[in-house]
Amino acid sequence: MALPRDVKKVVLAYSGGLDTSIILKWLQTELGAEVVTFTADLGQGEELEPARRKAEMMGIKEIHIEDVREEFCRDFVFPMFRANAVYEGTYLLGTSIARPLISKRLVEIARECGADAIAHGATGKGNDQVRFELSAYALNPDIKVIAPWREWEFKSRTDLLDFAEKNQIPVAKDKRGEAPFSVDANLLHSSSEGKVLEDPAEEAPAYVFQRTVSPEEAPDVATTITIGFAKGDPVSIDGAAMAPHELLARLNDLGRDNGIGRLDLVENRFVGMKSRGIYETPGGTILLAAHRAIESITLDRGAAHLKDELMPRYAEMIYNGFWFSPERLMLQAAIDKSQEHVEGTVRLKLYKGNVIVVGRESDKSLYSDALVTFEDDHGAYDQKDAAGFIRLNALRLRTLAKRQGL
Amino acid sequence: MALPRDVKKVVLAYSGGLDTSIILKWLQTELGAEVVTFTADLGQGEELEPARRKAEMMGIKEIHIEDVREEFCRDFVFPMFRANAVYEGTYLLGTSIARPLISKRLVEIARECGADAIAHGATGKGNDQVRFELSAYALNPDIKVIAPWREWEFKSRTDLLDFAEKNQIPVAKDKRGEAPFSVDANLLHSSSEGKVLEDPAEEAPAYVFQRTVSPEEAPDVATTITIGFAKGDPVSIDGAAMAPHELLARLNDLGRDNGIGRLDLVENRFVGMKSRGIYETPGGTILLAAHRAIESITLDRGAAHLKDELMPRYAEMIYNGFWFSPERLMLQAAIDKSQEHVEGTVRLKLYKGNVIVVGRESDKSLYSDALVTFEDDHGAYDQKDAAGFIRLNALRLRTLAKRQGL
Amino acid sequence: MALPRDVKKVVLAYSGGLDTSIILKWLQTELGAEVVTFTADLGQGEELEPARRKAEMMGIKEIHIEDVREEFCRDFVFPMFRANAVYEGTYLLGTSIARPLISKRLVEIARECGADAIAHGATGKGNDQVRFELSAYALNPDIKVIAPWREWEFKSRTDLLDFAEKNQIPVAKDKRGEAPFSVDANLLHSSSEGKVLEDPAEEAPAYVFQRTVSPEEAPDVATTITIGFAKGDPVSIDGAAMAPHELLARLNDLGRDNGIGRLDLVENRFVGMKSRGIYETPGGTILLAAHRAIESITLDRGAAHLKDELMPRYAEMIYNGFWFSPERLMLQAAIDKSQEHVEGTVRLKLYKGNVIVVGRESDKSLYSDALVTFEDDHGAYDQKDAAGFIRLNALRLRTLAKRQGL
Amino acid sequence: MALPRDVKKVVLAYSGGLDTSIILKWLQTELGAEVVTFTADLGQGEELEPARRKAEMMGIKEIHIEDVREEFCRDFVFPMFRANAVYEGTYLLGTSIARPLISKRLVEIARECGADAIAHGATGKGNDQVRFELSAYALNPDIKVIAPWREWEFKSRTDLLDFAEKNQIPVAKDKRGEAPFSVDANLLHSSSEGKVLEDPAEEAPAYVFQRTVSPEEAPDVATTITIGFAKGDPVSIDGAAMAPHELLARLNDLGRDNGIGRLDLVENRFVGMKSRGIYETPGGTILLAAHRAIESITLDRGAAHLKDELMPRYAEMIYNGFWFSPERLMLQAAIDKSQEHVEGTVRLKLYKGNVIVVGRESDKSLYSDALVTFEDDHGAYDQKDAAGFIRLNALRLRTLAKRQGL
Repeated sequence: MALPRDVKKVVLAYSGGLDTSIILKWLQTELGAEVVTFTADLGQGEELEPARRKAEMMGIKEIHIEDVREEFCRDFVFPMFRANAVYEGTYLLGTSIARPLISKRLVEIARECGADAIAHGATGKGNDQVRFELSAYALNPDIKVIAPWREWEFKSRTDLLDFAEKNQIPVAKDKRGEAPFSVDANLLHSSSEGKVLEDPAEEAPAYVFQRTVSPEEAPDVATTITIGFAKGDPVSIDGAAMAPHELLARLNDLGRDNGIGRLDLVENRFVGMKSRGIYETPGGTILLAAHRAIESITLDRGAAHLKDELMPRYAEMIYNGFWFSPERLMLQAAIDKSQEHVEGTVRLKLYKGNVIVVGRESDKSLYSDALVTFEDDHGAYDQKDAAGFIRLNALRLRTLAKRQGL
Repeated sequence: MALPRDVKKVVLAYSGGLDTSIILKWLQTELGAEVVTFTADLGQGEELEPARRKAEMMGIKEIHIEDVREEFCRDFVFPMFRANAVYEGTYLLGTSIARPLISKRLVEIARECGADAIAHGATGKGNDQVRFELSAYALNPDIKVIAPWREWEFKSRTDLLDFAEKNQIPVAKDKRGEAPFSVDANLLHSSSEGKVLEDPAEEAPAYVFQRTVSPEEAPDVATTITIGFAKGDPVSIDGAAMAPHELLARLNDLGRDNGIGRLDLVENRFVGMKSRGIYETPGGTILLAAHRAIESITLDRGAAHLKDELMPRYAEMIYNGFWFSPERLMLQAAIDKSQEHVEGTVRLKLYKGNVIVVGRESDKSLYSDALVTFEDDHGAYDQKDAAGFIRLNALRLRTLAKRQGL
Repeated sequence: MALPRDVKKVVLAYSGGLDTSIILKWLQTELGAEVVTFTADLGQGEELEPARRKAEMMGIKEIHIEDVREEFCRDFVFPMFRANAVYEGTYLLGTSIARPLISKRLVEIARECGADAIAHGATGKGNDQVRFELSAYALNPDIKVIAPWREWEFKSRTDLLDFAEKNQIPVAKDKRGEAPFSVDANLLHSSSEGKVLEDPAEEAPAYVFQRTVSPEEAPDVATTITIGFAKGDPVSIDGAAMAPHELLARLNDLGRDNGIGRLDLVENRFVGMKSRGIYETPGGTILLAAHRAIESITLDRGAAHLKDELMPRYAEMIYNGFWFSPERLMLQAAIDKSQEHVEGTVRLKLYKGNVIVVGRESDKSLYSDALVTFEDDHGAYDQKDAAGFIRLNALRLRTLAKRQGL
Repeated sequence: MALPRDVKKVVLAYSGGLDTSIILKWLQTELGAEVVTFTADLGQGEELEPARRKAEMMGIKEIHIEDVREEFCRDFVFPMFRANAVYEGTYLLGTSIARPLISKRLVEIARECGADAIAHGATGKGNDQVRFELSAYALNPDIKVIAPWREWEFKSRTDLLDFAEKNQIPVAKDKRGEAPFSVDANLLHSSSEGKVLEDPAEEAPAYVFQRTVSPEEAPDVATTITIGFAKGDPVSIDGAAMAPHELLARLNDLGRDNGIGRLDLVENRFVGMKSRGIYETPGGTILLAAHRAIESITLDRGAAHLKDELMPRYAEMIYNGFWFSPERLMLQAAIDKSQEHVEGTVRLKLYKGNVIVVGRESDKSLYSDALVTFEDDHGAYDQKDAAGFIRLNALRLRTLAKRQGL
């Protein structure tokens, strides 16, 4: 449990913000380790060049800044949406799904540059530490992981600021006071939690929402769009083919403008406590509705119901940090198998927080007008078959009723 | 499979409408059976006295007209909502949950009045025939079930109308032409399907919606309400205690006015085909959100996740008509066990189709400010525990990684 | 439901026995259809040439006799054993798994020879009719299926024998009386049911068992064998590589001689009733134990537990006849994904009905001596990690206990 | 993580053996705490009075020695067997199920005698520490738990023996050397692991087995018994009613004499590693077979299959130590619901390791001769119903096949 003091070189997940800058310095001073920084553009909507300058300023020689938005969407977000993954009935796993990718790159960079450790800025109370570390260990069993928030001696914000000052880490004026809540963001979502949000009985203040307009502020007229799918993934909007991250970005814009994807919830963390969060997932909320709609005409009932039953486990795996586990890979294999013919288009109306499916069509549709019609179906379905179907389904229930003397 | 011609007395689920009136007459003339009618007030919003008059006119001597709204809510709808039951990710099972109650009363009345058969007006292509009949057989294994739509020789609407005319069944003018779609309604929902709705690519016409205003038409200002829960069931609105059916009716009004609970979907029927339906479940949609919210602070993670995993099966059982099956009773026992401490209040904003949870509180809350806080928690949680937690959770992943030579 | 009288050419699953010979003749005379026969060597241990002669004698021009044992093992039995599939805790699905293969060939032959129908000899009370027909419809949605046992007018054995006599079908003397029970056999198992076995309270007579010696009669000395696995499938016995069907045949011999694989059970049929069967699965019983044993050292816990949870559904799908369903393919994809590193050898002692695993080893073993040892593990595992692991796992339980006032 | 040094009074799970005697002394000397001992008769087959004398000798004033065998069987073992619980396909959870009971009594005694802590002798690598501690925390969230094996400084057996000698703890001569393996025993089973058993490729030496004769040594003639059940629990053997623990003891004798219940496995521990164990569960092995057999005629298919699907989760919960969790209680509620009519008798032959079900009968049997018979069933089952049943089950598969162009 004690800090692995024999670390020589460590790759830090570095945002350029105050906290990870303090961590950077702490790794240098306390551990005497060489620090390599990794800053990812996950679509969080922040400039990354300031992170480079800050790292340079602190003497970092190996600075990795990468745009991983396409990989993030293609290899993480979209596979997850194939499963219609929702944690605890509501949360679209926006933070959870980004962590494995960051860890993957940290481990890869460590391997490339001969580092023996990685470090992250997640606290000891949250899920993210678990996600970072399980992913890292799954990809390199011998990697050392440093989680300064669990290890250092700082007791308060003041201690941190003192350390910053002592080590000439510039502290923006507005960072002197504590932020009223904590934020994580990427292309899929923004989450806010802590401080002013800590009482789940209290409505979240309007200023917490940063990524969407409120339903009230959204336009009074619906926006209609069409999303095209192939093999279970979205591939176009209104007929225009797009790369995964471009498509998600476009959906985000549409969702943002129409007040879509806000969520206020209390969730169960893997580390055993409940926490309250405000999530904004504008594009993802649209995508989920659209994906379910295209599945509704292209997926067989057996496949659809099996997916629905497996989904909560799958979502839990991702939430808990087991993306790189054999059980997640097993479920992914099952899910991907189901998506082979999930293609076609879905038409949606976006209106003041609502995502309304109004039409779906597909060359691979299993919907059969001939079968379902109230009109003469010309023999496609023999209604008399239903009598036998019901009688055999009822047989065991009748046997039970007889036993009960009913 | 042949019609059981030796029926002496049959209890018919009778709405008073044209179709079941034709069935009534057909049972009298074709079967030569004495017909007893059962008409239930399930909250469908129709006068029932006309059904009595019509039945009398056709010579029925035993006419049962009952208000079962309270039983419906208390013993069927609310137990189902304890499970957060949703079929195929979206459908709140409004039609499915009413059928077992109707069958239960049909079978009970048959026993009381010495009838050997029951009859219903569901067609041979739908789920309702299955639900009616499985329920009936589960409650009386020797009951005979007559499903005229599967059995008679009528081939078209014209045949039906001819039969009506020949038998002096009054046909309202507006029933001469075929309805543009088919409707089922009860206190929980209204469903519309068929005809103009048969093409899932086409948006449903506005006139299909009968029970809710559209989000667009709903007020520009949100309505805020508080729902109180006890043992997992809603018991009050804005502090006013209400009987189950009164509470649901009030939620329906609130939902209707705020454009809440509309759903356009393609679902998989138990009989093997896909169908497209328009559902309006105004109160139920509010209730589901509220129930999940009160659970979010009063239900432990283990219980909550187990419920989420069991739910799709439970919903499927209800959809398929297995309400009175041992497996549904098993799951209900598990679900009810989980609800013992699900109590407290949830505050919601209803706004143009949105049900927005803004606060929840409970004397039985498991949410612990002390644990989750970003501030000093005075030892409630030792962040160093997380290191051991992660390392043991990672152990098997590291062992795997070593095997793979990672 | 009525017999499709417009059948022109039908492929019959033909065993050469009395019953399917009567069916053959009935198809010719009643339907006036041209009959093509298909007789498969599934390892049932019967000569197939007599079936050819009998078919020729009855004027059949297209006679298909095929050895499908290898395909049966490789593409049906072994994939199923990867899942450790067991129905209702005990039944190894020996009959269930053979039906889809037979249907597959019937449908293929029908396509090749221009037949519009297939026919089988399964009765209307059993599972096999369902398995045959679901498989056939899944592979050719337009195929007609004829199940004479459900359709003809014969009421008794005497009627059948009269028909046979009238149509010059030779009836072996010992077939004049009714068999005291009914048998199905293939390379995986033999099943016996009906008649003398119908009372589940009565012990099965010794003469029912045809494929194994009783444990009492088996040798007094154990036989030790080693089974080698690759990708989850058995590939060798005692170091000798074997083709799938040869390997299973060898295990059958070993099982038979050592009294292994007998089972007396009451099972739940898909058609809604319970039935009592006697199964003998000598090789399969050994294989299941060995497969679980090799998995025990090569499969990670997450994969293993997920497999165990999915297994009952998978087994039910096979039992119910849904081999060619999308949901079975989804689960197979998940299962196969888990088997990539399931390789190595298992040593077993076979003794009077017992299959005793005594050793297992693998280059891909996840068992770590270093981790588990009671001795000094040189830091492979830090026991102090367990404290944090337990405390975080306990956190939610402690929170619950506090609420309960414990 | 550091040892809670402020413990005043601690209840120790005390066996009277060397290890827990060392722990007792260590708690006195290192912690300066008053020690209360709890020694339970769980049916492990050891005299408990020596434990009293030893405790007295070490100055313990509060000594609790209790016979909990009946409670163990009635409230822990039997509820678990209602579920047919088996971990990883083979392990009957004999150790796992005893831990919660011990913790329950430790916590209760602590409450009664004003102790603020409990202590146990489980090591930091095993599952038992988790089971003890999760149970304790679930029953008293504020209890302190001391696990000396995780905390003390002893590095080797020699250190321990030195400490014993220095503190005048008598060490039996045969305990000077290390035991060749480690044992846990109770009325349900004995487990052996470690040391000579650590190589899973090596056959376990014969001397490891202490509770059963080998199949080879068992009698050459089968023993036939009848077990009676009520509400899913065994209540009699050969017609003689027995208390739970007496019945299990009798089954143990029968199993022991007939070489039944031996198991050699590699299992996945909750703490993340694989371990190899030898288990002997003579009576439990008989009981499991008998319970499945009585269920086979009294349990409906829906209930039976749901139980089979839930079982692996239920077993995992017990294995991992979550007996006192809400999710286990939920599943128990479902399982118990299913057992209401599980009554009747099962006849078994016990022979050289085999448990052979040869008959089962019940007044609540759902097995229907009339339905299943090959003979004329007088209309109990209309074979024509099967055609409709199959056709509707096939409908979605045919629709799929059409899409695929089959």
